[in-house]
This record gives sequence, structure tokens and C-alpha cells, in this order.
Amino acid sequence: MSQPFSFHLNKTDGAARRGEFITPHGKVQTPAFMPVGTQATVKGLMPEDVRATGAEIVLGNTYHLMLRPGAERIAALGGLHKFMNWPFPILTDSGGFQVMSLSDLRKLDERGVTFRSHLDGAMVALSPERAIEIQALLGADISMQLDECLKLPATREEIARAMQMSLRWAERSKRAFESHARAGCALFGIVQGGDDIGLRQESAQVLTRIGFDGYAIGGLAVGEPQEVMLKIVAETTSVLPAERPRYLMGVGTPHDLIGAVARGIDMFDCVLPTRNGRHGMAFTRYGAINLTNARHADDSRPLDPESPHLAARTYSRAYLHHLSKASEMLGAVLLSTINLAYYQTLMAGMRKAITAGRFADFKAATEAEWARGDLPAL
Amino acid sequence: MSQPFSFHLNKTDGAARRGEFITPHGKVQTPAFMPVGTQATVKGLMPEDVRATGAEIVLGNTYHLMLRPGAERIAALGGLHKFMNWPFPILTDSGGFQVMSLSDLRKLDERGVTFRSHLDGAMVALSPERAIEIQALLGADISMQLDECLKLPATREEIARAMQMSLRWAERSKRAFESHARAGCALFGIVQGGDDIGLRQESAQVLTRIGFDGYAIGGLAVGEPQEVMLKIVAETTSVLPAERPRYLMGVGTPHDLIGAVARGIDMFDCVLPTRNGRHGMAFTRYGAINLTNARHADDSRPLDPESPHLAARTYSRAYLHHLSKASEMLGAVLLSTINLAYYQTLMAGMRKAITAGRFADFKAATEAEWARGDLPAL
Repeated sequence: MSQPFSFHLNKTDGAARRGEFITPHGKVQTPAFMPVGTQATVKGLMPEDVRATGAEIVLGNTYHLMLRPGAERIAALGGLHKFMNWPFPILTDSGGFQVMSLSDLRKLDERGVTFRSHLDGAMVALSPERAIEIQALLGADISMQLDECLKLPATREEIARAMQMSLRWAERSKRAFESHARAGCALFGIVQGGDDIGLRQESAQVLTRIGFDGYAIGGLAVGEPQEVMLKIVAETTSVLPAERPRYLMGVGTPHDLIGAVARGIDMFDCVLPTRNGRHGMAFTRYGAINLTNARHADDSRPLDPESPHLAARTYSRAYLHHLSKASEMLGAVLLSTINLAYYQTLMAGMRKAITAGRFADFKAATEAEWARGDLPAL
Repeated sequence: MSQPFSFHLNKTDGAARRGEFITPHGKVQTPAFMPVGTQATVKGLMPEDVRATGAEIVLGNTYHLMLRPGAERIAALGGLHKFMNWPFPILTDSGGFQVMSLSDLRKLDERGVTFRSHLDGAMVALSPERAIEIQALLGADISMQLDECLKLPATREEIARAMQMSLRWAERSKRAFESHARAGCALFGIVQGGDDIGLRQESAQVLTRIGFDGYAIGGLAVGEPQEVMLKIVAETTSVLPAERPRYLMGVGTPHDLIGAVARGIDMFDCVLPTRNGRHGMAFTRYGAINLTNARHADDSRPLDPESPHLAARTYSRAYLHHLSKASEMLGAVLLSTINLAYYQTLMAGMRKAITAGRFADFKAATEAEWARGDLPAL
């Protein structure tokens, strides 16, 4: 009885877009940021605390979940939503990126990849069809095609070859997805092509002809300057269909997010708010703050007295400094939730500004506030 | 305007006692279990989640807090309650136990101890007077005297000497406490004497003559058989004044708690529910359950479908198994809160049973349920 996956574009303001998409587990307002729940958990946070930050969708990692606890096991337990007690939308990646970054890649050919598990050394096969099957077993609201993620640096020829392979895998992914028909669920294709605008646009155009529910941009934020990334984003979104969501994978800092929304991106995921939170760094409207710095040791002020998030208004900088210096788990927990809440506040601010037709003003004011930096020391 | 610290004994049932004490930060129902907040945090848990387990009081560690972030610093930041965002009662220990267990003890004499910090190697002095001053700076509702905690094994002569020293330090602690008069706050003396009933009773009697707001039993649960511990508890509580709370320090398992309440103990603290939770162990009415065991990998049942605590009813054993095997922080967080909630449920059950005059039945039924063990495998 589910309605089909759909994306509604409510308003544009320059290239920035305000919309929403509908999944079997509910609606998501865009532009949206998805916290990363790698191993069926956003690290350290109870799902109700993730929800309380304002998150409407989280990301799960196919690579990690297929190795442990296993996709068939999660399916037998009722699917990923039930397993991790997150009844809202979930997007899963296809595993391609982690196969490249975490495993000893043993063999990649037209059929797929065979790799050595980083957990137990077992040899594991992943094909476009298996990646779709796994995501269906997990019960993902949004599945991603398997793509080939190159290790960089790479030559233009290598980038072109991998991009073409990813396009062929995109076609196979779509056929496999159709054979696992799940009402209302979506499949996204992934644009590749490195830093070559021509390859990127070719990839986007072929994917559009194949036809997906949404289009991701992969292979960015891998070390290139931000201006290069944003240029590729702009040149890619310009050839993607307006009526489908665009997802910039693995991005990024607050600066990246606001810059990419300005260039037509609707969705993001990134480990930065949680990973940096585990290392004593807070994201705030004053910019990034390193709480391990001794200047916070006696500072009784909260991170941001005007934050809509309770923890950011409640705990003193001195306490967060103490927890981070003492490597206390609660430091990671509090800063992860504070950072995720800041990201969601930023996204909500962008959505409101686009609706009001004043995105450029919002972007300039927000960037100016970051540039001014943290509160002066006490 | 605080009322003085007071303890009200509402009901006895055999040696078991039902009461409450009143502190500047609120009332505590006894028998009570105090979660351990070593470094100004119950590891991994937000204070509201600690409170939601039913905890009415937590313990803070003088040794840890004096070294980092420092007692004067916490005082300048408004005290420990504000620092850790726990507006309810706090008991602090005196540091004696951690000086013995964590530091290179350099020198112990009549004046006090000088030890090397386990954090940075600095030499630090702790005397009975300084221990009281630190606890006043922290703002403890209940302070503990400094005592000498022996490394075991020790001869009877050594135990007697340390016990006598602890009594002299008890007198000095009381004088120091009176000079830091804080309305409504309490000071507890600590009974020492190893496994020697005569020394234990002498210690208890001298402490009672000095006069404290409550009496702790220290130096137990350090490896002796449970029956030895419970015998010493019984022989010690029998000579302590009925109108003051008795606190068994650092104890223990659920078995220990119910056995010690049966022998007249009113208060406990222990790291077991949180420490074991971080290692994949759950305390339940079915006994202790090791969730890292493979038999839980496909078990969709919650730990205890009838638990009053939401997390124990919600998350599957398979999920808790997965989190523990994957060393995910959320496994530690969920099992710590589930375990603390079980401890509080157990204490609440004991309180209710004592009030109803059926403590022996409750104890027998609870122990029988533990002995039956976990649910049969699916």
C-alpha cells in the first residue's frame, strides 16, 4: 500500500533547491543531512537521540553490514530498521567505496569485485546484483548502485575506464533492483569521472538515460581543493534532471554543505560530525572549536547559549574539555550529538532561507559568522 | 536554609532496613545503589539517562577529580553537581582506595599519604584534612573520611595498625569537616579491620563514639569469598547504631547486594553494572548474560520483555550481540543503562518487600530466578 518513491521540488533560489522526498518510512525534507550509521549504529548515540538532533534519515554501510552481522541475518531479524530501532528512512550505500578503502582488493573485473574481509580475512564477492540484493535484504528505503571507486591519483584513462565500468554496473543494478521490486523504495545511480568535467557530464547523461530515482555524485571530497569539488558539483548538477534528488556522497564540512547546496545538491552524508566529536571537536555557528585546547579548561560557558539543542546550551566548555582530555565516552557522545544537531540546524536554516528566497543572504551571514570565529576568551 | 542531613528508618524486616535520607540535593530511598561517576561522568551515559534508570544518588571519586580537572577548578565552576549536570545527591569517596590501587604509593605516615599521580607522575599529598577540603570544594552531599586501604594479603598486625591509623584519621576528618561547615551535608566514617571480626567491631565501636552521620564498611569485596564478606558485614552492622545509614563500599554483584541488605546494609556503590556492560555482559532477572556468546547472534528477543526499562524491552539480543562483537560504543551505552536499571529495579524490589514485611520471600524468589538462569535458546 506504499506510495511510490517521489521527490517534490517546492522552491528554487538560484541553483539551491528546497524539496522533500517520500519513502516507505516517511518523508525527508531537503536539503538533508544523513548521519552515518556504519555498523547499524550512529556511533555512541541511541536512535532517539539521533532523531532529537533533527535527523530524518540515516545512512547504513553495506560493506560493514554484509560482513558483520550479515545481510541475511538482518533480514531474518526483520530488517535494518527494526534491528537498529530506527523506524525512519534509511539509505544504504553499495559497498564500493569501503571495498576500495578498507579491504585488500583482490580482483576487479566486469563481473564485480572479490575482496578480503578486513575482519577475518575471508574472501567475499560483491557484484552489482549482489549489492542490490544485500540492500533489499537490509530493507533500505534508498539503495545505491555498485560503482568502482578508484584509488587516487589515477590517470584520465583509468578514470574513464572506471567511469564506463560504473555505468555498465549502473544498468545491471537497475535490472537487479527491478527484480527485487519493493514498493516505494528507490535506487540512485552514481556519477563518477574524477575531476574531469567532460567525463562527469558524460556519466551524468548516460545515467539519466538509464533512469534512476535520484543521482549521486561519488568520488569527490577525496583530497581535492574545495573549489575543484564545488566546480565539479556545479557542472554535474547542471546536466542532471531537475525533478530528481541529487546526493553528494561523503561530504562534508559545514562550508562544503552550504557551498554544495548553492550548486544544486539536495542530500549529504558524512562521518565528520561524529568522528570529529569523538576527537574533541565541536561544530558550531562560531565555526569549528577544538575543545581539547587548554583555553576551555576554566570556561563555564556552554558551546552556544542560543543553540536550539539542549546539550549545546547546557554543558560547559570546561566540562566538555575535561571529558575530551580524559577520553571519557560521554565526551564523544555529547559532542557527536551536539555536532549532528548543529548540522541539522544548518540544514534547517538553509531550507528556510531557500523557501524565503534569501539563500544567498543566509549563506553570506552564516559564512561571516564562521569567519568571525569563536567567542572571545573569558 | 537546608535542613540537616537526616536518616529515617521506616521499617525493618529481620536485619533488612527500609529508610530514606535527606541531603541538600534531595531525598534518597534506601536500600540504595549508587552508580559510579568516576571522572564526573557515569561512563557513557547522559545524566538524564542515569536518572531514568531510577538512580537517586551517584558517587564521585576524589582521587580522580583532584588530579583532573582539579577540585579548586570544579569549585570555581560551581561545584561537581553543576559541572556534571547532575542536580541530585552526590557522595564522594576520600581517595584512599585509589591511592592504594592506582598510584605508586611513595610515603604513608601519620600525617597522610604522598603519591605519584598515575596521570602525569606529579607528586601529590593527601591528608585527612585535604581529603575533606577537596570534598567540600566538590560540594559533596556526603563526604567520606580518608582511610588507609591496605594491599592484601597483610598480617593481622598490619591490618590492626592500618585500622588504628584510620581511626585517628577519622577523628581528624571529623574536625576538618566541622571547620568546613556546609548545611545539611554529611560525613561518614569507614570501618576497617580486614577479615578479623574483633578488629572490625573495635573499629565500628570507636567510630560510633567519635560520631558520624553514617558508617561505611571498607576493605571488603577484595577477593575474599562471599560468605566471609557477608559474615563480616553481619558482625559489623550488629554493633553499628541503628539510627544511622550503613554503606558497604565497592559492592557488588546482585547476589552481594541482596545478601548484604539481608544483613542490615543501606547503601552500595559499584562499577560492575557499567564496567561489565562495556564488556558485553548484562545483569537481568535471569542472572548475568554474556551477550558476546554466539547463541545470541540470531535471537530476536529482548533481554527481558517484562523489564520496566525501555531499552531492556526494545533492543534484540542479536543487536546487543552485534554491538558488543563490533566494539560499538552504543553497546556499552545500552548495556550500562540496562544494567544500572536492573540494579535499581532490584533495589526497588527490596525496598517494597521490606515495607511489606516479606523480604525473605522476595530474596528467595529472586535468587531462585537467578539460579534458573536465562531463557532457553530459541
